[in-house]
Amino acid sequence: MCRWLAYSGSPILIEELLYKPKHSLVDQSLHSKLGAETTNGDGFGIGWYGVGETPGVFHSIEPAWNDRNLRNLAAHLEAPVVFAHIRASSGSPVQETNCHPFCHGRWLWMHNGLIRDFTKVKRDLALAVDPELYPEIEGSTDSELFFYLALTLGLEDDPPGAVERAVGLIEATGKRHGVEHPMQMTVATSDGEQVWAFRYSSEGRSRSLFYSTDVRTLRAQYPDAPVLQLVSDESRLVVSEPLGDLQGAWNEVPESSWGVIREGQDDLQPFKPRAPS
Amino acid sequence: MCRWLAYSGSPILIEELLYKPKHSLVDQSLHSKLGAETTNGDGFGIGWYGVGETPGVFHSIEPAWNDRNLRNLAAHLEAPVVFAHIRASSGSPVQETNCHPFCHGRWLWMHNGLIRDFTKVKRDLALAVDPELYPEIEGSTDSELFFYLALTLGLEDDPPGAVERAVGLIEATGKRHGVEHPMQMTVATSDGEQVWAFRYSSEGRSRSLFYSTDVRTLRAQYPDAPVLQLVSDESRLVVSEPLGDLQGAWNEVPESSWGVIREGQDDLQPFKPRAPS
Amino acid sequence: MCRWLAYSGSPILIEELLYKPKHSLVDQSLHSKLGAETTNGDGFGIGWYGVGETPGVFHSIEPAWNDRNLRNLAAHLEAPVVFAHIRASSGSPVQETNCHPFCHGRWLWMHNGLIRDFTKVKRDLALAVDPELYPEIEGSTDSELFFYLALTLGLEDDPPGAVERAVGLIEATGKRHGVEHPMQMTVATSDGEQVWAFRYSSEGRSRSLFYSTDVRTLRAQYPDAPVLQLVSDESRLVVSEPLGDLQGAWNEVPESSWGVIREGQDDLQPFKPRAPS
Amino acid sequence: MCRWLAYSGSPILIEELLYKPKHSLVDQSLHSKLGAETTNGDGFGIGWYGVGETPGVFHSIEPAWNDRNLRNLAAHLEAPVVFAHIRASSGSPVQETNCHPFCHGRWLWMHNGLIRDFTKVKRDLALAVDPELYPEIEGSTDSELFFYLALTLGLEDDPPGAVERAVGLIEATGKRHGVEHPMQMTVATSDGEQVWAFRYSSEGRSRSLFYSTDVRTLRAQYPDAPVLQLVSDESRLVVSEPLGDLQGAWNEVPESSWGVIREGQDDLQPFKPRAPS
Repeated sequence: MCRWLAYSGSPILIEELLYKPKHSLVDQSLHSKLGAETTNGDGFGIGWYGVGETPGVFHSIEPAWNDRNLRNLAAHLEAPVVFAHIRASSGSPVQETNCHPFCHGRWLWMHNGLIRDFTKVKRDLALAVDPELYPEIEGSTDSELFFYLALTLGLEDDPPGAVERAVGLIEATGKRHGVEHPMQMTVATSDGEQVWAFRYSSEGRSRSLFYSTDVRTLRAQYPDAPVLQLVSDESRLVVSEPLGDLQGAWNEVPESSWGVIREGQDDLQPFKPRAPS
Repeated sequence: MCRWLAYSGSPILIEELLYKPKHSLVDQSLHSKLGAETTNGDGFGIGWYGVGETPGVFHSIEPAWNDRNLRNLAAHLEAPVVFAHIRASSGSPVQETNCHPFCHGRWLWMHNGLIRDFTKVKRDLALAVDPELYPEIEGSTDSELFFYLALTLGLEDDPPGAVERAVGLIEATGKRHGVEHPMQMTVATSDGEQVWAFRYSSEGRSRSLFYSTDVRTLRAQYPDAPVLQLVSDESRLVVSEPLGDLQGAWNEVPESSWGVIREGQDDLQPFKPRAPS
Repeated sequence: MCRWLAYSGSPILIEELLYKPKHSLVDQSLHSKLGAETTNGDGFGIGWYGVGETPGVFHSIEPAWNDRNLRNLAAHLEAPVVFAHIRASSGSPVQETNCHPFCHGRWLWMHNGLIRDFTKVKRDLALAVDPELYPEIEGSTDSELFFYLALTLGLEDDPPGAVERAVGLIEATGKRHGVEHPMQMTVATSDGEQVWAFRYSSEGRSRSLFYSTDVRTLRAQYPDAPVLQLVSDESRLVVSEPLGDLQGAWNEVPESSWGVIREGQDDLQPFKPRAPS
Repeated sequence: MCRWLAYSGSPILIEELLYKPKHSLVDQSLHSKLGAETTNGDGFGIGWYGVGETPGVFHSIEPAWNDRNLRNLAAHLEAPVVFAHIRASSGSPVQETNCHPFCHGRWLWMHNGLIRDFTKVKRDLALAVDPELYPEIEGSTDSELFFYLALTLGLEDDPPGAVERAVGLIEATGKRHGVEHPMQMTVATSDGEQVWAFRYSSEGRSRSLFYSTDVRTLRAQYPDAPVLQLVSDESRLVVSEPLGDLQGAWNEVPESSWGVIREGQDDLQPFKPRAPS
């Protein structure tokens, strides 16, 4: 449905992530190889942490491949944590408020996949959002509503637990409405310090997700690759589909799992939806 | 907040309504005289009944004054019932799904004014929408939600009654949340056969609304005005503020009243919100 | 680079042309089979002759596949001559003034292909435009400049001759700047009465172009196809790539040729660029 | 026609310039006091020098007042030299390639005013542009063509001289076509090190232009104004109309003059168009 990329590491010019690699995310907007759709032209967005308390966000309803503002901003923005998302709408309108990453306070959120039969469950899920948060929902996507459910269920305190609870609630709601496989997702979220990534689907056949091999290992393997000299040891990318053409640079995130990228040791854990009691 | 125009009569080229008159609606997008805002540049929309079962609708997030598609469509579309609306956002995003007129089946709806403290009451009002209709809400405005409340409360069978019930509900909900004057509105709605117009506000000081004097009377008064020869006896305009410069051409719609334009006798009645029981 | 469709015949609802057929032009915006690019998402345009002296035109910088205004207009506009074009930019910006069909007076023009090494020859070609017409050029494409060269060289009096002269001029200019194959094109133009279509390239391997088989022949072959009952005997489509799935419905326009569609006998002739003397 | 702002000084968050002051540039997009038009809603642009060799540029066809991307970028971009421009079109289309500031290499350029009877002189002026530069012209405004004339006539080596020669050429060309007062302008241009500002019109009644009083003087006058503590001694603003409400903070740029802002001593000189020989 969509493709995304999350970077955490030493500050990097966004164009190094979005334009420079072979089969970059911007290339994928025209020609995705692993996506459910080959074209992801229904708007895009980037988010980054830099100047200011909250992350910067730029959303556009144009396709990414020819967008001059994106190209220009990418060449002039540098950040240690970058989110980028290209959208293939599964039905909701192409408008900036439906573009990822969504932002709430310090938090960014982006999603590839869908809540199946969303029109059947939308109202019940909207009711489950904290009434204080409800008026902040601006768009009409399943992805943004999912974000507000996660916020309602504790995202800011316990991201993995909150996403497990949100997915449990969505699955329970879907089942009540006769939806066989309510959830299909890869998700990234961040508070600017850490990045969490999730891969899960009710049917156990989730959208593709990859994380980059440790930079030190790659450097030893490719002593002549200049980009590997640019970034710090702890820099890491999580992507819907591999960029570039370095053998061994990418590892698949296993089915039904989540991981966290942060200074020090990364972590990869099983993802288990928690049904509401 | 906005300005609008509703026409019913013999088929007319839309540019005759939107561009030709002095102080036309397109002029008002830059320089409104009577509006709460002088500039109404946050998108626009037109709706018309012609070819096809449902009305045609064109929405844009550009200001009307320089929009080439609007100018071109207006010069090439002719219709017996035309709605046009220019928007000054009271906070919700400028996106096509927030542009009036809203459309549901054969029905068009447009609104000037606001539901006050909308963020306080939005969730309660959304819950009051028929769950079957709820997933069809595409934007985030008070005006569209008001339309869906009216549809829920019988708009298609009894437009004046449904709008009175919707306003009663909105006022009751607002009062419950401590809002002093929950409703400010002029509204037009149509099924393509008749056009209903409403003027009301909780505080009894409603946005301006005018209807055109009977064409036969005007023709007698201005035998040399060409536009008056073009249109049928029963043609009628309802507008947020007067167009053109014919003395006596416009009558103010009284406070707290509604009217209907149709073949035969028009009708003007008091508007009385009906609180939910 | 682009895909287009030209219709001439009995008045038809535009959605019958753009949305209803299998592999419709709107489908081709996402997944073209024969185009130089599989995705044609850099804006689109339609033109039609109906109400008013000049043709109606609607341009948008959004991809066609998800554009709600296009879908809505297509369902509410009926015309005897319809042009539609989906764009894959060969470099110039995605903006409405670069969307086809271009319009001048009663004339519409659309182009698939390119003037090669356009930056090398742009200035010389711009100088060759009639100084009276020069200020009317609004965009920055090779296609619009080509239109103004054809207008300069007599398009309104002798369309095939003017296009042959324009291409002769473009080829001579290109050669002077060392361009090997200056011209690649399929073109459609109309004054609302007749439609002319052209297929040519300097290298003799032109972009694909097809015209529909005579409706009477098709009706005899497919007595149960409802769309064939809808349209008049003389209705005709010219398209970049075939729509629908009727065997025998499409004929390739030969290399280096032009044709005209009009009431009575159509005509197909060789296309021979005429170099400036 | 337009309004603009140029800042040079210690690095500042762009929102401090665009949103925070009373009667800020974004306020002026809705309600200009001194402009030829009260509404400047036909697109906007910002340019800044920061990361990278060339300035960053962001252009939009939306009105500035409600643009969420502008608000978000302004809150997350910090730079020592900032240009911002809000547009009221004098006829050319509202598209990103017509938004200021224009960029060429390290140079930014923005203009308020117009080349009068532009359609009469456009072709002659286009011919005067260096043929190497000609293909880089992307939009259709008088302002961008003016920039390319200045570049042709030596902007990068001698900005004041090049602008004097460009204006001389424009005036001579206009006169030849019978235009009484060919030029009306305020202009800002920068290479990232210095900012040049110009005020001139053929008729000697130029659009308004102001520069800020020396920060040290202001600080002494307003010891409690926090913004004056934020910026360095040499920070300076040039604006189409005054921001804020500090008495004595603004000085009018005299008729027919230019100035340069740089480290060390600023400079103010008479502006004298130089006719082509």
